[in-house]
Amino acid sequence: MDLETLKSLVVKAETKIVLLVLDGLGGLPVEPGGPTALEAARTSHLDSLAAQGVTGLVDPVAPGITPGSGPGHLSLFGYDPLKYQIGRGVLEALGIDFELTHSDIAARGNFCTLDEAGRITDRRAGRISTEVCTELSGLLDTIRIEGIDVFVRPVKEHRLVAVFRGAGLSDQLTESDPQRLGEAPLKVQAKTPEAERTAGLVNAFIERARSLLKDRHPANMILLRGLATHPHLPTYQELYQLRAAAIAVYPMYRGLGKLVGMEALMTGPSVQEEFETLHQHWPAYDFFYVHVKGTDTAGEDGNFAAKVAVIEEVDRQLPVLLALRPDVLVVTGDHSTPAALKTHSWHPVPLLLSARSCRPDGAREFSERGCLQGGLGRLRGKEILRLALAHALHLVKFGA
Amino acid sequence: MDLETLKSLVVKAETKIVLLVLDGLGGLPVEPGGPTALEAARTSHLDSLAAQGVTGLVDPVAPGITPGSGPGHLSLFGYDPLKYQIGRGVLEALGIDFELTHSDIAARGNFCTLDEAGRITDRRAGRISTEVCTELSGLLDTIRIEGIDVFVRPVKEHRLVAVFRGAGLSDQLTESDPQRLGEAPLKVQAKTPEAERTAGLVNAFIERARSLLKDRHPANMILLRGLATHPHLPTYQELYQLRAAAIAVYPMYRGLGKLVGMEALMTGPSVQEEFETLHQHWPAYDFFYVHVKGTDTAGEDGNFAAKVAVIEEVDRQLPVLLALRPDVLVVTGDHSTPAALKTHSWHPVPLLLSARSCRPDGAREFSERGCLQGGLGRLRGKEILRLALAHALHLVKFGA
Repeated sequence: MDLETLKSLVVKAETKIVLLVLDGLGGLPVEPGGPTALEAARTSHLDSLAAQGVTGLVDPVAPGITPGSGPGHLSLFGYDPLKYQIGRGVLEALGIDFELTHSDIAARGNFCTLDEAGRITDRRAGRISTEVCTELSGLLDTIRIEGIDVFVRPVKEHRLVAVFRGAGLSDQLTESDPQRLGEAPLKVQAKTPEAERTAGLVNAFIERARSLLKDRHPANMILLRGLATHPHLPTYQELYQLRAAAIAVYPMYRGLGKLVGMEALMTGPSVQEEFETLHQHWPAYDFFYVHVKGTDTAGEDGNFAAKVAVIEEVDRQLPVLLALRPDVLVVTGDHSTPAALKTHSWHPVPLLLSARSCRPDGAREFSERGCLQGGLGRLRGKEILRLALAHALHLVKFGA
Repeated sequence: MDLETLKSLVVKAETKIVLLVLDGLGGLPVEPGGPTALEAARTSHLDSLAAQGVTGLVDPVAPGITPGSGPGHLSLFGYDPLKYQIGRGVLEALGIDFELTHSDIAARGNFCTLDEAGRITDRRAGRISTEVCTELSGLLDTIRIEGIDVFVRPVKEHRLVAVFRGAGLSDQLTESDPQRLGEAPLKVQAKTPEAERTAGLVNAFIERARSLLKDRHPANMILLRGLATHPHLPTYQELYQLRAAAIAVYPMYRGLGKLVGMEALMTGPSVQEEFETLHQHWPAYDFFYVHVKGTDTAGEDGNFAAKVAVIEEVDRQLPVLLALRPDVLVVTGDHSTPAALKTHSWHPVPLLLSARSCRPDGAREFSERGCLQGGLGRLRGKEILRLALAHALHLVKFGA
């Protein structure tokens, strides 16, 4: 069902929905036949919710496809991730509260180290401090390029955002980051004739940056990736009449929420603080997206025990969330990040939906194996929000 | 697979298919962890069929979407309910055996009661008898409107059908029924410029009806809804070379069958009589759609015990149907109607398919929980007919 048809079924309801995303939740055993991190974790609250609610397994994009964080989240938010594709530069810009217009080109950047021959020796410039990054970004922000405005903003450590603003710019551009050591930064190239002018302007900016940074070793150059325009996504307000809020610590996830019309709330970094933020803002919104990053970080580090610990910490804090009595609580991930693989993977993600109107199923615990017995079966990420809206009584029937 | 491609695979076969629709079949427990109506019902014949056949769970439209009776049935009949959308007026007209042309506009109507200020005090005119409805419909049928033909037919109690026939009419119209008490009937409005003339003609008819009915309290006005044209659906004959029959008591379901080229057979109202009708016409058709309304009525009434009783009655009568030895028997619903919710819902519908060529699965009984173990898994409503055709040996292989 397309979003326009779905929108035609939406009604107001005095209900609240919480979408709790444990980033990279799905896992694999580290030894044959062993438990996954979710299965190894002691999660009495999540298990109890699974026993009362319904569970299933989610393919965020499609079976066999490993989702990036952008597509993984957009699908959880109810959008077709194959239809709505978002550049990384846009996500980074939104995440630092930079107000992008729909004609801006945003790039994700790194400060990096070049040797005397101009070859990259460190793609992260020795992970300079955020303070140095801020100072150098300020320096680059002074660059003036004829005919456009350029904005450079620090993100964290070696990471920056560059935004190019002006009429007629195109994001049909290659990247300057070769993503390999020992090579020189690449010239940005136009993928279409319309993008030739933009490529020239971006390259002019990069050369000015090279001049300004030449004595700033180890941060003596920048690399740009993910040059992209801000896509037009219909918002939660437009589609569902929902006042939606995002509670997330990392910029990109705040940016993803803002992209669909959520307000990004200020929060402390721990799960406890995120749930406290939920408490503070509970009356003001109908829909809350809460993002927990630690599961993914542990998975990417190959640290099975750490992933178990993050899941157990979420479970320990869960009563704070449950005390608010959300009408619908969805717990899932934006993709799997098995510690055994140290990276995102294509494996389907455990899903738990708790609401009064759930039909009993065979699941007794929240785990990959348990979800195989779940009443939701196997579904696509983009279908989850529709189910949440249904259980929250936000949808009238389709057709007479 | 689109219908044109499916059609290209169809061959004749000396087999018979029965699609037994228990309206609103799917349910929920009335107390946590308890049985659904289907689970509570003693259904030895259905359970035995489930054990020998295959089961699954069906989303008639899509997960989370609550189907109306029209989309729910069209999907069971093998059509994409998002592509083929049917107005309620058309369904009502077909259901009373009114022969619609493709240029007619059909409306569903109610006799209603207005107070002296012209405000609606009863949207159903005290549920006047079918006799009074027939008399008053005859009166309205005498109305002549310049340039078009108007037909008014009684349905049942306070319900009527009005059909507007003439060249160049449009169904892009709003309804005259405000669906609220204390308000005056609305003027029908054109949604597009092309519909302006039709709106004027329909409003002229409504005003003539007001004059004719003014002394007929409580039925002193009419309300029109669901103004729609007859959609073009490819028929069972065209697509599958099937002689198809509909056995249904209520007009709308007979209308739904006729829409896809089924012959609506006369039948008595009980399940026993419906199955006897099946017996009488068995040699003349290849495909039978049999509709049982009681499950939905009980669900809408919130009467769990009554829903159980209807399911048990169907099971008790089932040997009459089974004695005919259909090659393929499908038992399912057009949507769920849990007594706990007293309305249609989005929960998936239990499905049972019985045929010689079924692969064994884990299901031992016909129930929501049992169907979770079924070999058909979770599927869309429109996929069911394709499976029935396959088991009935009506489809050759796709590709060489």
